[in-house]
Amino acid sequence: MIMDRLYEAAKVSPVCVGLDTKPGFLPGCLAAKDWSMGEKIAEFNRRVIDATADLAGCYKVQVACYEAMGLDGMCAYADTVKYVRDQGKIVIGDCKRGDISSTAEQYAAGHFTGDFEVDILTVNAYMGEDAASPYYPYLKERDKGLFVLLHTSNPSARDFQEQPMAGGDLLYEQVADAIAAWGQSTIGASGYSAVGAVVGLTYPEAFEALQERCPATFFLVPGYGAQGGTGRDIANIFRRSRCAVINSSRGIICGHQGKTEGEDFVDYIRGKTAAMKEDILQWL
Amino acid sequence: MIMDRLYEAAKVSPVCVGLDTKPGFLPGCLAAKDWSMGEKIAEFNRRVIDATADLAGCYKVQVACYEAMGLDGMCAYADTVKYVRDQGKIVIGDCKRGDISSTAEQYAAGHFTGDFEVDILTVNAYMGEDAASPYYPYLKERDKGLFVLLHTSNPSARDFQEQPMAGGDLLYEQVADAIAAWGQSTIGASGYSAVGAVVGLTYPEAFEALQERCPATFFLVPGYGAQGGTGRDIANIFRRSRCAVINSSRGIICGHQGKTEGEDFVDYIRGKTAAMKEDILQWL
Repeated sequence: MIMDRLYEAAKVSPVCVGLDTKPGFLPGCLAAKDWSMGEKIAEFNRRVIDATADLAGCYKVQVACYEAMGLDGMCAYADTVKYVRDQGKIVIGDCKRGDISSTAEQYAAGHFTGDFEVDILTVNAYMGEDAASPYYPYLKERDKGLFVLLHTSNPSARDFQEQPMAGGDLLYEQVADAIAAWGQSTIGASGYSAVGAVVGLTYPEAFEALQERCPATFFLVPGYGAQGGTGRDIANIFRRSRCAVINSSRGIICGHQGKTEGEDFVDYIRGKTAAMKEDILQWL
Repeated sequence: MIMDRLYEAAKVSPVCVGLDTKPGFLPGCLAAKDWSMGEKIAEFNRRVIDATADLAGCYKVQVACYEAMGLDGMCAYADTVKYVRDQGKIVIGDCKRGDISSTAEQYAAGHFTGDFEVDILTVNAYMGEDAASPYYPYLKERDKGLFVLLHTSNPSARDFQEQPMAGGDLLYEQVADAIAAWGQSTIGASGYSAVGAVVGLTYPEAFEALQERCPATFFLVPGYGAQGGTGRDIANIFRRSRCAVINSSRGIICGHQGKTEGEDFVDYIRGKTAAMKEDILQWL
C-alpha cells in the first residue's frame, strides 16, 4: 500500500523534495541551452532527482509552476513525474484538485493513469466526500493515495479553516475527522490509511493535537524552512509517531543560487537535501 | 470590465454552454477521423462553438475532461479556450484551482496569459483570501474575473459547506460574505464585481437568500438539467436581478446522441441550446 511505502521511506528520510521549478531557478549552464523552457526545466529536475534520490524520502511536484508555462510546461510536468517513478521513488502531484462526481473521475483518470500519473495526489475537499470518493477505486486497485488539504499555515487560514463551528470544533478539526473516516477502510500494515492530509507546522501544538485526533492519518507538511517549522519542531512530532513527510522546495532546489552557474549546481542541491535530513534526524 | 460584459451577454442569453467533452460524446463522423483524440475533441468543440455562438451567452470548459487525456487533451483545452476567445465570446476555465501566494501567482499566470488563457477562472478558496488575492492584479490590469466556489448541489455539500458556524451562519454564508468583500473594489457599471461565485440551484430559496445577501456578486450556476433547476426556477431568480449565467454541458453537447452520427450533429446541439434559452426566457 502506498502509504506503507511512504511511511517506510520517511523513516529513512522524511525529506520531500519539492520540484516547484521556475525558470529563474535554472543555473546558467542550463539556462543557456538552445531548448524550450520546458525542456530545460525537465532536465534540471532530472538532474536534481539523480543527485538526491538516495537522500530524499519522496518528491512533490507543484503543477502550478508547469501550468504557468502552458503546453511546454505540461510536457515538463509529465516528464518529471514519470522520471521520479522510473527511479522507483514516490511522487506526489501537488495539484489540489477539487471537484465532484464525474468531473473528479476525470481528474482521477488524469492523475492516476496516463501522462500525468503520480502515486499520490493532493485534493481539496471543500465540496465534501464527493470530492474524494471518485478516487477511492484507484486507492485500492492501483495502489494510489490522496493528501487532502486540511490546515494550512497561510495568514488567511483563519478566514474559514480556523473558524469555530456550532459544535465547538474549528472547521479544520471537522475536516480532520472526515478525512479520518474516509480513509478508514484503506488502513495498511503501517497503521496509516491511503487518505492523508496536508497540514502546516506553524503551530506545533495544533499539529500534535491533530496527530492524536487522527492516528491513522499520514501527513504532508509543507512547513520546513520558508514556511516556518524547524528540524527540532519536526523531531518533537516524530517522537510520538513518524507520521509525516516534510516538504522543502526553494530551500533545496535554489541551493546553488549565488554559488555556481555550472554543472556542479547539483552538488549544492544535494548538500541542502542532506543538511535538511540531518537537521531533522539529529534530534531523534 | 469582464463581469459587465458577461452581464450584458447574459441578458441576451443566460445559457453557458459547457464544453465538458469526453471521447464518448463524439459523433461517428468525427470519431472515425485518423487524428489524435485531442484533435477530434478540439474539432468537435470548434463546430459546437460555431453552431451556438449566436445563442450562447458564454462557454465554460471543464479542464478535468482534458487533463484526463494527458498532453493531447491539454492541447485540445488550449485550442478550445483560444477558439472561444477568437470568436469574441467569453470563456470560463472551470479549473477550481485552489492554492496560495506564489503558487496561486503561477496559476494566475497560467490561466490568465499564455496557452490556457481564459476570461474567467473558477477557484476554490478553502485556504481563504490568500487563494484569491494573487489573481487581483489580473482582474484590474487584464480585465479578468473569478468565480469562487461557494455552495454546490452535491449530496456531500452538507459535509462542510452547510455546517452551522458558531456565529449562526452556515459555512457557505460566511464564504459568501468573504467573496462579496473580496470583490468590493472591482464593482463595474453593471453593479457586479469581478469576483463572482459558483452556486447550485437545488434549493431556489437558498439561492434567493444569497442573491439578497450579495447583491454585487454575479453567479455561475451549474444547475440546469442534469443537476436539477428548471427554467421556471431560474426565471424566478431573474425577476429579482439578471445575476447569473446557467451552465448546461451534457444536456447540450450530447444532443445528437441517438439521433445522428453525421455532420448534421451540430444541428441537434444548436437545437438543444435554443431550447434551453427559450425554456428560461419564456417565463420572463
